[in-house]
Amino acid sequence: MARDPLPLAQALIRCASVTPADDGALAVVEAALRPLGFAVTHLDFDGTPNLFAIRTTPGTNGPHLCFAGHTDVVPPGAGPWTVEPFGGEVRDGILYGRGATDMKGGVAAFIAAIPEASPGTISLLITGDEEGPATGGTVRVLEWMQAQGHIPDMCLVGEPTSKVALGDTIKVGRRGSLNATITVHGTQGHSAYPQRADNPIHRLVRVLATLTATPLDTGSAFFEATSLQVTSVDVGNPATNVIPGSATARLNIRFNDLHSSASLGEHLRGVLAEHAPRHELELSCSGESFLTRPGPFVEALKRAVRAACGREPTLDTGGGTSDARFISRYCPVAELGAVGATMHKADEQTPVAELRALTALYAAVIAETLVLPGSGL
Amino acid sequence: MARDPLPLAQALIRCASVTPADDGALAVVEAALRPLGFAVTHLDFDGTPNLFAIRTTPGTNGPHLCFAGHTDVVPPGAGPWTVEPFGGEVRDGILYGRGATDMKGGVAAFIAAIPEASPGTISLLITGDEEGPATGGTVRVLEWMQAQGHIPDMCLVGEPTSKVALGDTIKVGRRGSLNATITVHGTQGHSAYPQRADNPIHRLVRVLATLTATPLDTGSAFFEATSLQVTSVDVGNPATNVIPGSATARLNIRFNDLHSSASLGEHLRGVLAEHAPRHELELSCSGESFLTRPGPFVEALKRAVRAACGREPTLDTGGGTSDARFISRYCPVAELGAVGATMHKADEQTPVAELRALTALYAAVIAETLVLPGSGL
Ligand SMILES: [Zn+2]
Ligand SMILES: [Zn+2]
Repeated sequence: MARDPLPLAQALIRCASVTPADDGALAVVEAALRPLGFAVTHLDFDGTPNLFAIRTTPGTNGPHLCFAGHTDVVPPGAGPWTVEPFGGEVRDGILYGRGATDMKGGVAAFIAAIPEASPGTISLLITGDEEGPATGGTVRVLEWMQAQGHIPDMCLVGEPTSKVALGDTIKVGRRGSLNATITVHGTQGHSAYPQRADNPIHRLVRVLATLTATPLDTGSAFFEATSLQVTSVDVGNPATNVIPGSATARLNIRFNDLHSSASLGEHLRGVLAEHAPRHELELSCSGESFLTRPGPFVEALKRAVRAACGREPTLDTGGGTSDARFISRYCPVAELGAVGATMHKADEQTPVAELRALTALYAAVIAETLVLPGSGL
Repeated sequence: MARDPLPLAQALIRCASVTPADDGALAVVEAALRPLGFAVTHLDFDGTPNLFAIRTTPGTNGPHLCFAGHTDVVPPGAGPWTVEPFGGEVRDGILYGRGATDMKGGVAAFIAAIPEASPGTISLLITGDEEGPATGGTVRVLEWMQAQGHIPDMCLVGEPTSKVALGDTIKVGRRGSLNATITVHGTQGHSAYPQRADNPIHRLVRVLATLTATPLDTGSAFFEATSLQVTSVDVGNPATNVIPGSATARLNIRFNDLHSSASLGEHLRGVLAEHAPRHELELSCSGESFLTRPGPFVEALKRAVRAACGREPTLDTGGGTSDARFISRYCPVAELGAVGATMHKADEQTPVAELRALTALYAAVIAETLVLPGSGL
């Protein structure tokens, strides 16, 4: 039923679409979708190219499945590539190139999996800025989709979530990420007369020792434990006989559904109040945690993996952030895609057989999801 | 009995002898000592000018008192001087100028206090590098003195030790000073995957929290408590999503006679072994602690203060380091001098009456010490 994804994947890899460049990638997507009956809209926000495509097969009334992905890629980097990063070369049955797994291969596989006709509605939200600041990408397209009445019933994100074998992992949530910058103030003085000074480093060390002494939690039903990492401490005092006036630390907290950026801010303020009353605290949240609880959509994805890959998928919420955090505000969202072992690395690659297996998996996802009821997902 | 110290103090202040410059200061000292019968030797070590002068009054057999001092001064600095720093100006009975208290005033007062004849031996060890690195100064002159058989029975250092009123404080020891640089190694990684990394900041924070949690001691019979100050912590990691590979802290420890640089090194190594096995530790000791225990020399100084100033001096071991740390290896040493309130500051000054009172105090010191037995001090 499904078509061969290889020519489309190669055409996409041959566009040097390092964020924020497009280099014709979205035009390749459009050219592949139009013959399948999709209405295609290009959406540029603040210079970021995006594409939204939608097709409702007439005479059907199934639900609306959206596939979300990106055609931008991270730079090749200085690593030792043995092939041309934008060549789309196949060697010994393996497709090489930047984006082969993350995620031009995924975009090509989904498009190749779309049947000539299907019950309900299929749409694609393809952004050109997932690897960058993402401010003009998925967030803005979702606002536009809402204004147009195009919010889907469920969304599949094509990130390379598989760990070892295709389909072994479905991401149903992601931890949130909060950055904090703490500056503790003391009173500068001479090392020989500490009683006349107030060493801000000693206060900051107590704050950081308290924050890192015990884990914030031991994980929840669907999440691993919240992790707080101090990423830098900086004083920059070159004088060994001087107690400095202030000291700064930076923290990154990856948090599960037991916390929010607001509750973590309160936690930090409490520890600071105890050990360092004179302080500044700057918080910056790049995404709250989210979770798509098990239900008809996730069950349909599991059935698709069983049917196409012959294995039982694990529901996972680990790793970094993805655009799924934005989509989760609108509808159930899950991530399922290629084996991501070589993503962002030199010689990024996928076996052609696995790219075709991913196409079969996406075809099964479409078959399993478009027969679901349109509500209660 | 004593002469007026003012002209000599003014002549010394008028030499712009900012370390390592001499600008004629030691020649002024020599010109003042020769008429009193001193044999004067100029000693240059690695470009540092020093002077040693000695006089034994014939027909006497008292002990050997050495006066140690310096003619170099710290720079005027950018502070708001209301007089010429090297003018030696007297205004409303107050002598102004860089070195007025630290310690050209002290050198002038001691020379003015030397009687025409005295039992025993008087010597002066005057260096031109006390405020600088001091490598070519007092340490080298002492080695030379030992080779010449000129090690004294006791030594008075003319640093401005008085706090509020002349003679209120005799320094009989100084804390040692140890600098440590600690670099803790971990394993670099991504903030989202802390289980694959080993955060060196968390380890370093535990090391520093342990080191600063409880004081190393609560002081000893003659010393205030040892003080450990973390003076800088530096990681310099700009990436909020990266756990760094190493983290560095710098410490300064001012320690009393309960510790040595060796015992403190062991203490640091013990805490590091517990919390951060992979580390580097660099130690640099700028002086061990020393103490001149109460005895005939210190008692003679106390009698001199009582007689000349009419007050009871306090024995003190606080503050920074001085050249007394080098002298303590050879003989009992104590520091007694002017009120140091304006030392190293703008408009450094001493009332002329107080400079004369210091001369009277030094005359009393000479009278009280040169009648002591030459051994068992
Ligand atoms: Zn991606
Ligand atoms: Zn001095």
